[in-house]
Amino acid sequence: MFKLPEAPKPVTHRRAANALRALAMDAVEAAKSGHPGMPMGMADIAEVLWNHFLEHDPADPKWPDRDRFVISNGHGSMLLYALLHLSGYELPMEELRRFRQLHSRTPGHPEYGVTPGVETSTGPLGQGLANAVGMALAERLLAAEFNRPGFNVVNHRTYVFVGDGCLMEGISHEAASLAGTLGLDRLIVFYDDNRISIDGDVDGWFRDDTPARFQAYGWRVLSDIDGHDPESLFRAILAAKGGDGRPTLICCKTVIGKGAPNRQGSAKVHGAPLGAEEIALARTALDWPYAPFAIPADVAAHWNARLRGREAHHEWEQRMYGYAKAHPDLALEFQRRMSGVLPQDWADTAEQMRAQHRAVAKAVATRKSSEQVLDACAPRLPELFGGSADLTESNLTRWHDAAVVQPRQLSGRYLSWGVREFGMAAAMNGMALHGGYIPFGGTFAVFSDYARNAIRMAALMRIRVIHVLTHDSIGLGEDGPTHQPVEHAASLRLIPHLDVWRPCDGAETAVAWQQAIQRDDGPSALLLSRQGLPENPSDAEREAWIAHGGYVLSEADDAAQVVLIATGSEVAIALQAQTLLAEEGIAARVVSMPCTQAFDRQHGTWRHAVLPPAIPRIAVEAAHPDFWRKYVGLEGAVIGLAEFGESAPAAQLFDHFGINAAAVAEAARVRVRNLQRPGTAGAALSLN
Amino acid sequence: MFKLPEAPKPVTHRRAANALRALAMDAVEAAKSGHPGMPMGMADIAEVLWNHFLEHDPADPKWPDRDRFVISNGHGSMLLYALLHLSGYELPMEELRRFRQLHSRTPGHPEYGVTPGVETSTGPLGQGLANAVGMALAERLLAAEFNRPGFNVVNHRTYVFVGDGCLMEGISHEAASLAGTLGLDRLIVFYDDNRISIDGDVDGWFRDDTPARFQAYGWRVLSDIDGHDPESLFRAILAAKGGDGRPTLICCKTVIGKGAPNRQGSAKVHGAPLGAEEIALARTALDWPYAPFAIPADVAAHWNARLRGREAHHEWEQRMYGYAKAHPDLALEFQRRMSGVLPQDWADTAEQMRAQHRAVAKAVATRKSSEQVLDACAPRLPELFGGSADLTESNLTRWHDAAVVQPRQLSGRYLSWGVREFGMAAAMNGMALHGGYIPFGGTFAVFSDYARNAIRMAALMRIRVIHVLTHDSIGLGEDGPTHQPVEHAASLRLIPHLDVWRPCDGAETAVAWQQAIQRDDGPSALLLSRQGLPENPSDAEREAWIAHGGYVLSEADDAAQVVLIATGSEVAIALQAQTLLAEEGIAARVVSMPCTQAFDRQHGTWRHAVLPPAIPRIAVEAAHPDFWRKYVGLEGAVIGLAEFGESAPAAQLFDHFGINAAAVAEAARVRVRNLQRPGTAGAALSLN
Repeated sequence: MFKLPEAPKPVTHRRAANALRALAMDAVEAAKSGHPGMPMGMADIAEVLWNHFLEHDPADPKWPDRDRFVISNGHGSMLLYALLHLSGYELPMEELRRFRQLHSRTPGHPEYGVTPGVETSTGPLGQGLANAVGMALAERLLAAEFNRPGFNVVNHRTYVFVGDGCLMEGISHEAASLAGTLGLDRLIVFYDDNRISIDGDVDGWFRDDTPARFQAYGWRVLSDIDGHDPESLFRAILAAKGGDGRPTLICCKTVIGKGAPNRQGSAKVHGAPLGAEEIALARTALDWPYAPFAIPADVAAHWNARLRGREAHHEWEQRMYGYAKAHPDLALEFQRRMSGVLPQDWADTAEQMRAQHRAVAKAVATRKSSEQVLDACAPRLPELFGGSADLTESNLTRWHDAAVVQPRQLSGRYLSWGVREFGMAAAMNGMALHGGYIPFGGTFAVFSDYARNAIRMAALMRIRVIHVLTHDSIGLGEDGPTHQPVEHAASLRLIPHLDVWRPCDGAETAVAWQQAIQRDDGPSALLLSRQGLPENPSDAEREAWIAHGGYVLSEADDAAQVVLIATGSEVAIALQAQTLLAEEGIAARVVSMPCTQAFDRQHGTWRHAVLPPAIPRIAVEAAHPDFWRKYVGLEGAVIGLAEFGESAPAAQLFDHFGINAAAVAEAARVRVRNLQRPGTAGAALSLN
Repeated sequence: MFKLPEAPKPVTHRRAANALRALAMDAVEAAKSGHPGMPMGMADIAEVLWNHFLEHDPADPKWPDRDRFVISNGHGSMLLYALLHLSGYELPMEELRRFRQLHSRTPGHPEYGVTPGVETSTGPLGQGLANAVGMALAERLLAAEFNRPGFNVVNHRTYVFVGDGCLMEGISHEAASLAGTLGLDRLIVFYDDNRISIDGDVDGWFRDDTPARFQAYGWRVLSDIDGHDPESLFRAILAAKGGDGRPTLICCKTVIGKGAPNRQGSAKVHGAPLGAEEIALARTALDWPYAPFAIPADVAAHWNARLRGREAHHEWEQRMYGYAKAHPDLALEFQRRMSGVLPQDWADTAEQMRAQHRAVAKAVATRKSSEQVLDACAPRLPELFGGSADLTESNLTRWHDAAVVQPRQLSGRYLSWGVREFGMAAAMNGMALHGGYIPFGGTFAVFSDYARNAIRMAALMRIRVIHVLTHDSIGLGEDGPTHQPVEHAASLRLIPHLDVWRPCDGAETAVAWQQAIQRDDGPSALLLSRQGLPENPSDAEREAWIAHGGYVLSEADDAAQVVLIATGSEVAIALQAQTLLAEEGIAARVVSMPCTQAFDRQHGTWRHAVLPPAIPRIAVEAAHPDFWRKYVGLEGAVIGLAEFGESAPAAQLFDHFGINAAAVAEAARVRVRNLQRPGTAGAALSLN
């Protein structure tokens, strides 16, 4: 007679979590490189979060209302890859076998754009937490803008894993202090409290009372949670989801490398393969008798989230459908915003941004021109989100009718980030990654140092964020060398994929902003002057040239004998030198080069037309000269500053450091003479 | 009959403090630029501290046992200048009148080396606090090493002023967390809790419970002190001086710009002159009827600390005298250490550092060679203080018998700084400024970004600190682009006064360490490889050449037709290319250039001998190529990496990015051919 098949045994939390541990062990072993400690230590937390709370759709990693999940302790990448693979993302086991291999989708640290489901690139410690603060902020701001009664189309959470290292980093203070002040209660952070960092037991260098520290930031803290007890974790996450106006820190006591009998709980398990022997012992200890990379069917089924994900996604699409019927314009705008496409009237907006600078007579600081550009475009570009690291009145980053975000009133388009350059830059990255916003933030150019690695991460992720870096040279004046950038223009230009603009007037400032906003494959930095700069006559043709990054601003009367290359405040100096030289019968061309990256991207015909190979070149920039050898070579000259600045009125400093028309003209004179005897002279000069 | 003259009225605290306020108002007004808010707000705190507690000798700003005083909120420089002037340092009123003028001794922000009594350059917020942590650490470590029963020759405190901005910065977390963990109870910090930063009332972006935050770090916190009440301040400082194993934070409620009737308590008073009218009103409000820069005799007498200072200094000299009699060798060593002079047997030590690398056959990673150098020199160089930002096993910065500093047991010569790159770098600056130590610290080269502005500050102050930056290229391998430096070598070379060494083998590593240790006019960074590098035959002559920063490592058999310039791990590639070219009859010279700054400092005869102007040059470095145009010009070629790296085994990456001998040889071939038709070709190439 007929007999029912036996019902499958339910998969326990521990067994499900051990799948993560096994995959981490096996992938690190196969790569002979990697970090098994964090994945094995946080496996139980990840299992409860992903199988019982995380709202996501493995079939559509870009679903706008998905929960965001970030591992700030990015060396635990194999935990994330195991989660993505098991829950059903386009990440086949073959990719896990190729962990850390060239062109695999499983690089050593999570990389945005390489692996479906990876929300941000992490590894540089602490930044993932700050990215998440930006994501959680973007979520609440979009909710305030787009949600309507009965239609919560923006309604997700941001979950973050952090380790001891993240919490030792200064950026964790900036990010957590800001999140507490703003009251980002959709932000839920899991602290992997395993007492171990690379040098050993953290007791030797990290004795913070972390729960008390986060309470001081205004966070809700759930402490002493057993990070290996599914029930405690379940209750903690439930509590955290009950928003009370505060972000939540769940402090989980864990054992690093849990499951590796001889290594767990020690630094030895952090960043090296366990080895065949220890892995065999771990398999026994974990009761995981399966071959490397083998996942039993019941466990695979337990993890697969495609059905759950489709249902959640579908439910949201139903909501969107009703929303679109009730609020058709809002729905279209929401889709546009999340897609990153600029408004239909963008071309017209850009025209207005540029047009206002065509008929300007008097000298204006480019930071002021920038403010005028923002006044022209911000009201018509709702995704533009501005801010400053407590230098609003100096950076001039707040346009006139900007709605300012207030603590616990999360709406608006401008934020005073506080004196938190690094946190601001990393949170801006998070906002851009979340979608819906083009964030820009201001500080003094010299303090781009504080934010430098977050600027680099934006360039690595090729996301659209804009850094407004004012007071861009010794033109800053009296505040002195601690505040005067010297090496910054050059060193920012060295970051791959970062466009650095240093405009010389309002027209170039407008085009720089336009290009930075239109650019969807990387970040931009705008270096702006404190001091007034003369406006050059402009029209649509010049504006088109500016977009090329380098162009002939002022042609010589006769065939040019020398080319003067300048940026920003030094363009005026080059023009003065051109006049001086003309009086001596030397024909000089002035090239304005506001963005060397854009110029380098031009076809050779444009580049050679602007910089004819056979004509000597002089570069002038109130910054470190070495960078310009790339354009002037050894025979050319660079008028710049290889020294730190001084505290004095700006005008005096330019003469004090010999950055003026006389110096440019003299260098040109020498080169024009040298034309008769090329070769050695140039090389000799280049080494002086 | 005879009548006694009336006894002078004692000067009240308030009247004494108002002298500081008046000088700040007047100097900022004269400069038409500056920050009156902080000096007027913290004047009462400064008055009590300086007139009743601070142990210093205005006649000898370098007295080793003086208390250290740091204003981390460095924009309040006029407070410091007023204090130095009034208490009797070599800072005449004429200099205060020239506040913020070219070549004055009163620059916009305090600058170490410019003004007697300024202990560190501050302005970039938060770093002064971290400098002070380093000073307080150095004080305790020296005390442990040199004090003997009855002879506390090292016995001073470190006092710091910090503002809201400092406490928002991430570095304040790194510094305070470390100070609490270590238990630096000679560190006393005054928090200028005025609720104002540049964007306005900090309530909008900074709502930390700062007392609770610092308690969480293990600090003793004295909260709710009235920063304008001398008696409360007096009691607070007395309590703070009673060490209990914890650093102390004194939270002072203050009014920014106190005394300026219409501006005090608002952001308007922070960073702009008050104007004649407001100053007149302030003079009335403060009952200060004196002319600008005029200090009445009784107030001047009250402030003058030269007598007090001489007595304290003399008392210490008596102690040193007894100490020298009881412990003559220790006394001599203490004087040597504080003077910064290297040991008499340094030349012999340096010889040992170098000698061990002469007979090496097998390939060794330069980070490993660095460890060997440390083993050779650290035991004989007691001022060398090492550490790592939680990467000790990777940086190989701990020599074998290094005594490790433990929390609350402040002795030893090696510190695990925790994952605090910026805090470590700024605290190292503080140790160097304090004197007695040559600090060095390790992290991955890519994370020099986190510490960048502190490295810059060391270069600006021209102090001797050494940064050990390992895993210096894509040679790092599997950890991927977040951990692989690309732009870092070039961007560090752009910081004025920073010597950047990228050695190719053990011999160059030893010379790099020797030069960094001998150098007493600025910091050095050592970029070291993760991977093994072949050792080149070495002897005393080559070692002397290495010290020149660039030299001929391998001459061509015939007259060189092309020069191959390389650094670090790419020197081996250049040597392979030389062999390939020789087989084709092309004579190539290989120049190793471990330190471009040292090379640039050589006389032209050396530079031209190494790089003959007429011979084409090829540079190869697994880093951003643009920097090398400075040496190869437009006609030369650079084999490098203008892209981010990839996650893969290191060997694969060098071929993947085309950084190998074949690419170098091909570039050389092209250039040798181009010699027949110079000019355009090179320029064209340079722009591709």
